[in-house]
Formats: sequence, structure tokens, C-alpha cells
Amino acid sequence: MSGIIGVVGGGQLARMMVPAAIKLGIELRVLAEQDGAAASIAATAVGDYRDAATVLDFARGVNVLTFDHEHVPQDVLAALLDAGVAVRPGPAALLHAQDKLIMRRRLAELGIPVPEWAEARSRADVAAFLSEHGGRAVAKTPRGGYDGKGVRVVRAAGDIDDWLDSGSPVLLEELVPFVRELAQSVARRPSGEIAVYPLVESFQRDGVCAEVIAPAPSAGRVAQPAARIATAIAEGLDVTGILAVELFETEDERILVNELAMRPHNSGHWSIEGAVTSQFEQHLRAVLDLPLGSVDARAPWTVMVNVLGGPADGDLGRARRRALGAQPSAAVHLYGKAPRPGRKIGHVTVAGADLDEVAYEARAAAAAFD
Amino acid sequence: MSGIIGVVGGGQLARMMVPAAIKLGIELRVLAEQDGAAASIAATAVGDYRDAATVLDFARGVNVLTFDHEHVPQDVLAALLDAGVAVRPGPAALLHAQDKLIMRRRLAELGIPVPEWAEARSRADVAAFLSEHGGRAVAKTPRGGYDGKGVRVVRAAGDIDDWLDSGSPVLLEELVPFVRELAQSVARRPSGEIAVYPLVESFQRDGVCAEVIAPAPSAGRVAQPAARIATAIAEGLDVTGILAVELFETEDERILVNELAMRPHNSGHWSIEGAVTSQFEQHLRAVLDLPLGSVDARAPWTVMVNVLGGPADGDLGRARRRALGAQPSAAVHLYGKAPRPGRKIGHVTVAGADLDEVAYEARAAAAAFD
Repeated sequence: MSGIIGVVGGGQLARMMVPAAIKLGIELRVLAEQDGAAASIAATAVGDYRDAATVLDFARGVNVLTFDHEHVPQDVLAALLDAGVAVRPGPAALLHAQDKLIMRRRLAELGIPVPEWAEARSRADVAAFLSEHGGRAVAKTPRGGYDGKGVRVVRAAGDIDDWLDSGSPVLLEELVPFVRELAQSVARRPSGEIAVYPLVESFQRDGVCAEVIAPAPSAGRVAQPAARIATAIAEGLDVTGILAVELFETEDERILVNELAMRPHNSGHWSIEGAVTSQFEQHLRAVLDLPLGSVDARAPWTVMVNVLGGPADGDLGRARRRALGAQPSAAVHLYGKAPRPGRKIGHVTVAGADLDEVAYEARAAAAAFD
Repeated sequence: MSGIIGVVGGGQLARMMVPAAIKLGIELRVLAEQDGAAASIAATAVGDYRDAATVLDFARGVNVLTFDHEHVPQDVLAALLDAGVAVRPGPAALLHAQDKLIMRRRLAELGIPVPEWAEARSRADVAAFLSEHGGRAVAKTPRGGYDGKGVRVVRAAGDIDDWLDSGSPVLLEELVPFVRELAQSVARRPSGEIAVYPLVESFQRDGVCAEVIAPAPSAGRVAQPAARIATAIAEGLDVTGILAVELFETEDERILVNELAMRPHNSGHWSIEGAVTSQFEQHLRAVLDLPLGSVDARAPWTVMVNVLGGPADGDLGRARRRALGAQPSAAVHLYGKAPRPGRKIGHVTVAGADLDEVAYEARAAAAAFD
């Protein structure tokens, strides 16, 4: 039976692909960064994803290569293509999830609504942007940022001298007056089929996703534009696999694209219990060009709460027992990672008919890990 | 974090425990019979479960040992207990899933309703039982039967001479005039907590489970007695983990116990999608003495259809593509086993509000594998 998928990266996203692969009878091989990675159960190799020889060796014998993260360098991706490896999403698409300046430029070309932005190479560029945007802006390093890292609110032209001194350009964006953050996931397979998940609302704490409600409450007026935007991006950039689009909803009911991820995304973890087909199974189907599954919600409401940090006493086993005992309806997911302040070590999902009840139970189960 | 579970046996039941273990952050180790077993992703050892030294070696370092099947000999189980290994379900309970004569005797002692039965050691015993039961009976070898093997309908005293000649006693049972077959699963943990799953209806074809509907339609009048019977058995035999009780519903609305299984069971596969907590996760929780999860159904109806045999052309990948394309709402599970006539190589589950629709979709998806 054909269908061996290689995943570069052994984090929790690769880990959560494993149950989907077991279910469908797909062989999953993981190239982990180190022993004891979250996805170590499927790790067939341990090595550096920045090393072309390591990745090429890993890719031998797989039908398609995909990713747990977006950090594989373009020269490694090019070497894979040269060697005839099917890479999904492809390097040309992935570039837009790797470099925020390239992403902003391309989305603007596609006519996708984005915050006002500029490329800054000097303190003068920063000063000009600030003067045009009420003296405030968000600065982002185009590459390598995640979970609030590489993002800074700027109020003075000299606030990002350290970044500019490195010689790389910096992305400046207006500080969007948003009322909430939304996320729209779609799956797209090479043959063109697209599946659009319900729009969700996400809540960040200190720049890290803390909670997701699916579907986004009162999404009526924004659901269609969000679906259109994500579909246009998936098609415009020729994305294969899961594309997650983080969105701002503004005070004047506009939808602006914040970030892109081309892999299963934290905003889609709810789908494991909450949707007929989870984002992890959908990603595997999509990269193998198998028919996509239904994205229908399985309950009126699903709430996902991240487990961040973990218990102060470090006893994750006892915290798990507490969580399971307190909330028998909660789906508790742990990533095999040691507790550390702020670290995403798991998540909890509850689905049901009453949003207040569902949210209470999910938060209570996650709080049992504090 | 404590919680390493060793599973003896590498079949599809062990395989389907793996996603539950990944979810909860539990380390699962499997002793498989051979390379390439269904649960090979978690196999840390390959060997003969009838060999005490092999099993003892495997059990070293696990917190609790459990099973994919009931065939581990009692002397091996005794050796495990002697070595201080936590074995769940324990040998004394498991004996009743290993030997149908011992099971019948003990259930009768507990006052559990069972078909009329007798132990036959000779042709005369068979003749006597036949004369008391209208000239027909079911004969079962007490040990080793499964999926219709070791079961025979008897009409003449000499029909089981071959079995009697082996010197082992044979279980004779009345041919129960049943209107349907039901299955009741419960989970019980060492501390005594019990969770009772919805009663389901099962449909056999050639002695093999073909389909399960959850909950059993019109179960009202039999749901309570079924739950009481399974609870009484779990407590009476001190079962830990999942106990599945196969039941006959008779024309006169009695419930009689047919068979017992002390492990996740085919009649409970629907719970992966259909219940808040799957039988596989529940089994892991129970044997680790963790709080049990909710057994509530996640949809009004869930239908599970086994994939038996597989495609005539042997091309399972193409059959899978057909199934996924035809039924986007179907959860397709494959066990990593090669197609072979009559072999259980997977199952399909669909959940929803309309039983006719759900059953149609599940049967159609399974039929795509023919």
C-alpha cells in the first residue's frame, strides 16, 4: 500500500500526526531534532534539518515529505526537489511562511487585505512609518519569530536599532485596532480540492495562543470573507496540506491577515475532537493527494485551552490525574515534554452544546496543570 | 511521570491503544508476536507470550501489564505476579475469559443469567443434553475459540467426537432463541470506579462481528438489565480494564450472557469517534488506576462496520482512496494487515443524527474495500 510520509521535525505537531497515520494505515517517519522529542515514537532518524545530506538521507523511500515547522532552509528544500522528492507544501509556497516580508508583499499583490506595512532598513524608515501611523507600530523580524518572539511594539525610531544593525530588513506594520483574533484553516491537495474548516476565535496571552473557541461566536458576518481569504491564499500560493491563516477582526468589521502557517496549527487542535476530520488527518490526506474528509463540526461548540508551563512541583503525572479526575468530559493531550515556564506542554479540549459549560470545563481541566 | 504500560500482544487492539497513549502522554510498550505486527509502531520486543522468561523480561520497568488478547497462559501470569508485576486484569479474573466452562460455572454462581449449559466429557453427555433441549445444542471448546472458531451447532451425539477424543471437556449450551445480539462494555479500575458504556447492538456474519450500532435501537427495556449484568460481572470477577459482555436478547425479552472479553473489544470500536472517551483510552486509564473518562455518546447514533477480507485485487491503497472519496464523513481505520479472505483488516465508523444515513455511509465506506 503506497503512502509513506516523512515529517521533518519531531515536535508536538508531528506527534499528533501519528494517531491519524495509525488510523489510516499510513506509515509515518519522523526526522527529529533530538532523542526524546515529542514525536519520538515515530522517529526513524535524528538529525539537523538544516543539513541537506541529513534530510536527503531521511527522505529516501518516502512518498512525500512534509513538515512539523517552517524552518527548513530553502537550499535544503531545493536539494530535495532536485533529488525528485515530493515536498508538500512546496518550497515556493513555504517561503511565504518563512519570511514575513515576502508574505506581506505577495499577499498585497494578490489583493488580500493586510495591515499597512513597510520594509525598514534604517532608523529613518522607522521614523517615517511611525509619523504616518500615529507614532506607534509593530516591528517583526521577517524570519524565525514564533509565539511572540521576534515581535516588538515600537514607539521611537531607535527601538529596533539592534535588529537593524544586523543588516537584515525589518517588517513594520500598523498597530491594528482589532476587536478580536480569528483563525481560518483550510486544507488543499495537489489535485486542487479544498476543505474549509469552521472559522475559530483565538485568545493570546503574552503573545502565545492560550485558548480557541470553535466556531468563532457570532462569526456570521466574518465567516465568508475569512473563508474567501484563506482559499485565495491557498490557491494563490499553491499551498498543499493545511494552511492556517491568523486574522484580525477590526473595529470597523474588516478582516486583515496577520500570520500564515503551512502545517497543522495550534488554532486547529480543537478539530481532533471537534471536527469529523482532524487537521492532522486532513494534512496527511492532503499531502498524499487523498480525498479530503468532512470538516463539519461534531458539536455546537468546542473549546481548546493550552496547557502552558505545567505544574510548579514538576509532577506532571499527578497533575494529569487531577485533571482527569476533575473533568471527565475533557480530552487531555500531553506532548511528552517536561514542564517549563511558558512552554506548551499539552492542551485540553471539551465539546458540547453549551458554550459556557464547555469553556468552564476546558479551562478547569487546563488549570489542574498549574 | 509514572505510567508505562506494557501490552502483551501486537494485534489491532494494541495498535488502537497507541493513539490513546500518545494523547495522554503515557508510554506504551508492546510485546508483539512477530515483526510487522499491527501494533509494531509501539513494539519494544518481539517474542512468544507463552514463554515466561520472554514476558518477564518484557515486563521489566513497566508500571502495569495488560493485554491485546486473553491467551497468556496462567503459569506465565503466575510468574509475573511472583515477580511483583502489576497485571490488569489479574490472572484470577482473566481465567474467566480464557475458559468458557469456568466462566459459565462462575456466572451461574453469581446469579448472572446465562443460557442453559452443561459440561460434556462423553458422547452420552451430549446425547443427554440434546434430549433435554429439543435435539439441538451449541458446543464450544472451552479454550482458544474466537470469531466463530471452536463453536459448532450439534444435532447428533457424535457430532463432537473429535473434540471429545482430545480428552478435554466441551461446553454444551442451549441454542438460544435470540432476537438480537447486544454487547455491554464497562470499565473498572482497581480503586473500584466503574464506567458503563451505552449498550450496543452487534450483527454477526459467519460468526464474525460485522456491524455495531450504538446505542442499541429501542434499548430502553434491556439497557438497565444489561448494565447491571456487566457491572455485577466486573465486580464479581474483580475485572480491571475494559470488560465486554456479549449478550443475547431472547424472544421473551430476557438477557443472557454469551461471551466475555477482558480487553477492548470489537463491539466497542465505535467509541473511538462515538463516545467522549474511547474504550482504548478508558482501558489505559483503568489499568493505570487513573480517573475514568465520560462514556457519553457524542452523537445520537454511531455505526461501525468491519472491513473484512479486503479488496480482491489486493490493492488496499486504492481501496482506501475509494472509501475516503466516496464517504467524506467516514472514519476509516486500517490495521496495517494484508488483505486475506475473512480477515479483520480495519473498520469504518460514522456518527450522526440520522441512523439510516449513518448506517448507509458506514456500510458504503466499508463496501469500498470489497
